[in-house]
Amino acid sequence: LDYQHVQVPFEITLWIMLASLAKIGFHLYNKLPSVVPESCLLIFVGLIMGGIIYGLNDRSPPVMDSDIFFLYLLPPIVLDAGYFMPSRPFFENIGTILLYAVVGTIWNVFGIGFSLYGICQVKAFRLQDVSLLHNLLFGSLIAAVDPVAVLAVFEEIHVNEKLHILVFGESLLNDAVTVVLYKLFRSFCEMPTIKSVDVFAGVGKFFVVGLGGVLVGLSFGFTAAFTTRFTKDIRVIEPLFVFLYSYLSYLTAEMFHLSGIVAIISCAMGMKRYVEANISLKSHTTVKYFMKMWSSVSDTLIFIFLGVSTIGENHEWNWPYICFTVIFCLIWRALGVLVLTFFVNRFHVNTITSKDQFIIAYGGLRGAICFSLVFLLPDFHRKKLFIAATTVVILFTVFVQGMTIRPLVDLLAVKRERESAPTVGEQIHIRFLDHLLAGIEDISGHWGQYYWKDKLEYFNSKYLQKILLREYDQPKSSIVLLYEKLERKHAIELAQAGQLGHGLAHPSFLSSDRTVITEQKLEDTPNPDVLDNMQEILARNLYRIRRTGPAYNRHTLPGDSEPSERAKEILILRHKSL
Amino acid sequence: LDYQHVQVPFEITLWIMLASLAKIGFHLYNKLPSVVPESCLLIFVGLIMGGIIYGLNDRSPPVMDSDIFFLYLLPPIVLDAGYFMPSRPFFENIGTILLYAVVGTIWNVFGIGFSLYGICQVKAFRLQDVSLLHNLLFGSLIAAVDPVAVLAVFEEIHVNEKLHILVFGESLLNDAVTVVLYKLFRSFCEMPTIKSVDVFAGVGKFFVVGLGGVLVGLSFGFTAAFTTRFTKDIRVIEPLFVFLYSYLSYLTAEMFHLSGIVAIISCAMGMKRYVEANISLKSHTTVKYFMKMWSSVSDTLIFIFLGVSTIGENHEWNWPYICFTVIFCLIWRALGVLVLTFFVNRFHVNTITSKDQFIIAYGGLRGAICFSLVFLLPDFHRKKLFIAATTVVILFTVFVQGMTIRPLVDLLAVKRERESAPTVGEQIHIRFLDHLLAGIEDISGHWGQYYWKDKLEYFNSKYLQKILLREYDQPKSSIVLLYEKLERKHAIELAQAGQLGHGLAHPSFLSSDRTVITEQKLEDTPNPDVLDNMQEILARNLYRIRRTGPAYNRHTLPGDSEPSERAKEILILRHKSL
Repeated sequence: LDYQHVQVPFEITLWIMLASLAKIGFHLYNKLPSVVPESCLLIFVGLIMGGIIYGLNDRSPPVMDSDIFFLYLLPPIVLDAGYFMPSRPFFENIGTILLYAVVGTIWNVFGIGFSLYGICQVKAFRLQDVSLLHNLLFGSLIAAVDPVAVLAVFEEIHVNEKLHILVFGESLLNDAVTVVLYKLFRSFCEMPTIKSVDVFAGVGKFFVVGLGGVLVGLSFGFTAAFTTRFTKDIRVIEPLFVFLYSYLSYLTAEMFHLSGIVAIISCAMGMKRYVEANISLKSHTTVKYFMKMWSSVSDTLIFIFLGVSTIGENHEWNWPYICFTVIFCLIWRALGVLVLTFFVNRFHVNTITSKDQFIIAYGGLRGAICFSLVFLLPDFHRKKLFIAATTVVILFTVFVQGMTIRPLVDLLAVKRERESAPTVGEQIHIRFLDHLLAGIEDISGHWGQYYWKDKLEYFNSKYLQKILLREYDQPKSSIVLLYEKLERKHAIELAQAGQLGHGLAHPSFLSSDRTVITEQKLEDTPNPDVLDNMQEILARNLYRIRRTGPAYNRHTLPGDSEPSERAKEILILRHKSL
Repeated sequence: LDYQHVQVPFEITLWIMLASLAKIGFHLYNKLPSVVPESCLLIFVGLIMGGIIYGLNDRSPPVMDSDIFFLYLLPPIVLDAGYFMPSRPFFENIGTILLYAVVGTIWNVFGIGFSLYGICQVKAFRLQDVSLLHNLLFGSLIAAVDPVAVLAVFEEIHVNEKLHILVFGESLLNDAVTVVLYKLFRSFCEMPTIKSVDVFAGVGKFFVVGLGGVLVGLSFGFTAAFTTRFTKDIRVIEPLFVFLYSYLSYLTAEMFHLSGIVAIISCAMGMKRYVEANISLKSHTTVKYFMKMWSSVSDTLIFIFLGVSTIGENHEWNWPYICFTVIFCLIWRALGVLVLTFFVNRFHVNTITSKDQFIIAYGGLRGAICFSLVFLLPDFHRKKLFIAATTVVILFTVFVQGMTIRPLVDLLAVKRERESAPTVGEQIHIRFLDHLLAGIEDISGHWGQYYWKDKLEYFNSKYLQKILLREYDQPKSSIVLLYEKLERKHAIELAQAGQLGHGLAHPSFLSSDRTVITEQKLEDTPNPDVLDNMQEILARNLYRIRRTGPAYNRHTLPGDSEPSERAKEILILRHKSL
């Protein structure tokens, strides 16, 4: 037995396997996930696993490594979120989202930091040695809403699209603020004196970190789109480029201390429409499938690891500090949302209702990002207190808020997601209004979102598309694409029901009356009608030669290299039969 | 700049990127790959990269780590080979393949080992210090034909299926023999005295390593199939199980010192038909695509690394030894093939022609497995000589044999791959004959391959399918599946040509006359016919409400959760219009 040799990949594979099996397990019993969010169940599984490891080894189970989290587990989730981000509501609400993400997060950091410092002054709690800077540092890591936790809960409760995008967008974009504040306070903690220059440099960093992330992301995104122009002869590696370039954008941003999350989201949103137009349909299915698969698994692993890492002796249980942390997190978030929404509503016709405000405040879940950041703190004597407080806040938000938010949404009758997507008619109408509004804004000299959207679209079709798309494969208007998609789907359904071209083949023949054709039972089926039927179908559909199982080749998928001659032949033959 | 932090994933991503871009580059210029095999070009790229690294650092570039090769690069290639293995020719020739793989490899090991020992006795060559055991050890690592190199060359020359499967099958199955002999001689080298018991134990190990690999593989394969029974509600993680279980089978086999290659091939071949029946069509596309993608990339990386590792100062250039190694490799392989084929032909009606024998002997390419094994040798004073000899043998076989095999195949007019796969009529005939022969074998009491195949098929349909397949999703006869596939394809083509259901929509409307519908240019198209056309199509096809862009959800792909109601509605509506 040579376990050492295969240990690393073996254990990784086993963890992923555990995560996948846990997911299957939950879905087998449908009642459980409808009451408890999956994230809670997964943390629970993690707690049990951690307990077992603790019981067997009699020492703390290994905590989730921050490097593993930030380098391997987080990127797939954020990539998936960015790639499937509904861009219209996102850009319509970008102002509000940025306000919540930047001003809201700063508000929370300083609110929580200063009020916890106040608590530390109470002598009875024995916390006088925690300095203001340490409290602010703690505030900076505990204030940020976590995209992984928010996604896991909000995708199950189906609130209306605007509310969803507000909370979700904030959780993604606040990464830039968190990165800056966390690193700023951490370096302040290590500095002997703080000059006012440093503070101003910190403010400047916001823009560098955020905009730098966007720039890095977009440049990698466009390079990815450009690369897929040349993959026509080697379709199998097309999906790879989508993953490689987005991951590189994340790593590059992290390398330059920019916001990796912002970078990977810009990269995914920037490349999506061009890559989709360049790569083949099967490649695109693979890209989508793999993104969903990876993010599902990462997400599952994160929650399980959260549970496992909770067990152990890394904690200092100073309950006053921990309880006040939870309370301040709730209070400051609620206040922040109230104040910011007040200003937002003054400048918008389509206001955010008070019910929505409550859900935004209540949906501020904390998760694995805080957890990883607290472990990354430099060693000092109260680190274990911070770890304990962070753990409790995460468990409180995920369990208590995560489990009660669905009943609350029902109780408050918060406006839900539209049951049905816009019809084709509505879509045409929306498009028409966009152009109309762009015209009105242009005439009135108001540079609003429609004006910019129109300009971007012009720039896109004039320059970007020419560089990034293959000539003969220009993107079609979305309505034509939709129509083609529906046609294709319909055609497949027709084919499956056996109603294509030949009315004689009744569906049962194709799907259930299988015994007719398996030769083993040929003698058991004396029905001559069905046999005649089969002969007729085969006779009508047999054209020259059909390729079924091509020989093994590493670089092509079976059936990829079908010559177009044959396709034409089918078309002609079928057209006649119709 | 914080490069340390992201170094590992960043460099891995960059290597993969280099490999992918090299692949695209070769395919852009079609002339090059038609003369030189891709593997040679990749080694050449690697040599240049290695030269650059050597020039910049003034020291040997890092060699390919054997662990990385065996744990991460080899499994995807073998998995792909096993999953797409054409099972019929493989099992029809399994006896011959095993003979070549087991007896042929042993013949080569001892032939090369003993004759090199003879060369070492020539005083002029100054090689007297290389013992017989060391020569045998070297023989055991240099004798085995490499699946990666064989695949890379043979998939480009399109010889007939039987010839292909003989060389390819041998290269896969000789792994068990190589593992046993290599480990045996390595332990003998370290032992002070060798008892006869050890030799017998070595012979017994053959069976343990090979059959153990098959057992491990099959058990993981069936577990994978069983697991996919329960993934109906969570389609996105289906592809994951295929990869996880096959990788686990490989690692488990390696852990117990069994043959990992044999295990992963058995796993892939065992699970394929059940997994295919259980998982959704899109999942299956993803599985196939990702396997091809991974194996392509691994293969590319291996050849590039081979090139990079060649540069440097790891070599001891004793030319007599090196040249005789190349010569003996060629001679002993040719002799082995001649002798073994003589016996094979005596027992078969369908003999192996002398042209085929020449190609089998000439196609015995060596590759990265030898290379990794030679670096895994324990340190002794002549290790660098072995490394040099291995490098030269690999470069000679890949460049000289790899580049001349295609002209030779043309020159000898070796029987090529059938241009066309069997027609439906032929397929029915083949099936019929299988059953007939099984009956004849049964009556005559001869337990031949048809008898066993029939028994296996019975066992499969009686027990295995019931356990491993979901009830409502039973596999159909392959001919029905083929028919459905052709129907589906035809339907998609019809839909793309716009000939489905409504004769009015002429194809140009859907594909090229895009300007009609993009609203920006609406005023430029005064053609009322086309507009009427469009209105009519929309009016006819609009039914209740169409879902186009569902909200973001991590666990489902857009359009997955389409209610079947709507599909029915389309069907009814369309049926009327037909």
